[in-house]
Amino acid sequence: MAQLQRIAIAPSQIQANVITLGKEQQHYLGRVLRLRGGDRFIAMDGRGKWWLAQLEGEQAQILEQLSAENELPVTVTLMVALPKGNGFDEIVRYCTELGVSCIAPVLSDRTLLNPSPQKLERWRRIATEAAEQSERCFIPTILEPVPFTTSISANLGSHRYICEGRGDYPHLNNLIESDTSTITIATGPEGGWTEAEISLAIASGFQPVSLGRRILRAVTAPTVAITLISAAFH
Amino acid sequence: MAQLQRIAIAPSQIQANVITLGKEQQHYLGRVLRLRGGDRFIAMDGRGKWWLAQLEGEQAQILEQLSAENELPVTVTLMVALPKGNGFDEIVRYCTELGVSCIAPVLSDRTLLNPSPQKLERWRRIATEAAEQSERCFIPTILEPVPFTTSISANLGSHRYICEGRGDYPHLNNLIESDTSTITIATGPEGGWTEAEISLAIASGFQPVSLGRRILRAVTAPTVAITLISAAFH
Repeated sequence: MAQLQRIAIAPSQIQANVITLGKEQQHYLGRVLRLRGGDRFIAMDGRGKWWLAQLEGEQAQILEQLSAENELPVTVTLMVALPKGNGFDEIVRYCTELGVSCIAPVLSDRTLLNPSPQKLERWRRIATEAAEQSERCFIPTILEPVPFTTSISANLGSHRYICEGRGDYPHLNNLIESDTSTITIATGPEGGWTEAEISLAIASGFQPVSLGRRILRAVTAPTVAITLISAAFH
Repeated sequence: MAQLQRIAIAPSQIQANVITLGKEQQHYLGRVLRLRGGDRFIAMDGRGKWWLAQLEGEQAQILEQLSAENELPVTVTLMVALPKGNGFDEIVRYCTELGVSCIAPVLSDRTLLNPSPQKLERWRRIATEAAEQSERCFIPTILEPVPFTTSISANLGSHRYICEGRGDYPHLNNLIESDTSTITIATGPEGGWTEAEISLAIASGFQPVSLGRRILRAVTAPTVAITLISAAFH
């Protein structure tokens, strides 16, 4: 399994096995992802179809349609406040196994430190290993850590939840709708989110949710959240 | 917080603060849990009522009613094939946080080694720490490792499931009934259960179930199973 980058395309961009790339897609593939002519990537139409494609200038040739049986039919982004120590390694490993699409580490008010660039490399290696081990078709994207405020306002998922252990919020299980194509779920640091963070999340369209009565570690909550989402879409 | 064993009883077994124990319950308390006269345990009626009780021959004296807000209303026993390395530490930590009642490590056909007595001490210490951290009322019981064949035939849970990654089994989420008072769930070693083990489990009243399409590590499967059970009873 290669670590292939993924981009979303509209089905109308495909004609006779050729994808006509928009300016932004060309920029993203060439400048952001640094792909060159002949390099391969995955094109997804967001409706469960996946293709292996090869970049050729302003176009891409479709090489084959991919079978993504072991992938969730929903794109799940996990926004997670970086925990202390090496806890994030466990989060990446478990959540990759469970089908997460993208992991966005964030620096919250209660996050103590900014990780080194070597950490990001390490997380991506763990995600690659875990994706292979769990027989996934694709490797989840691990984004660079950014402040919570940046991440929360950039987020575009149609269904957005923020997990909070204290407080009388509805259980995530009661709110997952299986007719959505994108979900973003945020889990907090040791000690939980601050009130200001919860307020900002609510203002950004996030629904606060509970993961149950027992207080979970910052390392455990993401696995529980992704387990419940995966099971709702199994 | 004391490390007390728990058993499920029917409300009709209680009269004037005395629990009349059935033959199977006497066997379980005496032979499996190795309690003796004067030892204390927790009796649960499966409807959210808990009592501290003291074993006295074929009966038990109720000492006091307990408050157990953060506990699951169901007794969940996790039977888990010992994984390689220190993976069992993680299993104990995560599953204790999630509300498991009893963890029964088993030696399966594909289990490589028999753990030292020091390991059992270590697991019990981890369970104690995790129960405190997650604000549980009780510490789950960690039984001594026994062969799978011994454990599976001693098990008394009214609803019994065995998780198997390969094969076309129904998803656990579709089978959990929230009107039960005891659940036993078994998860396998690296490489899965053998066919003979699955057959034996079926013959012992276990229903084979899937935890989803992605192949989970032996360390991850217990957490996923207990998460789904906890969420069904939240």
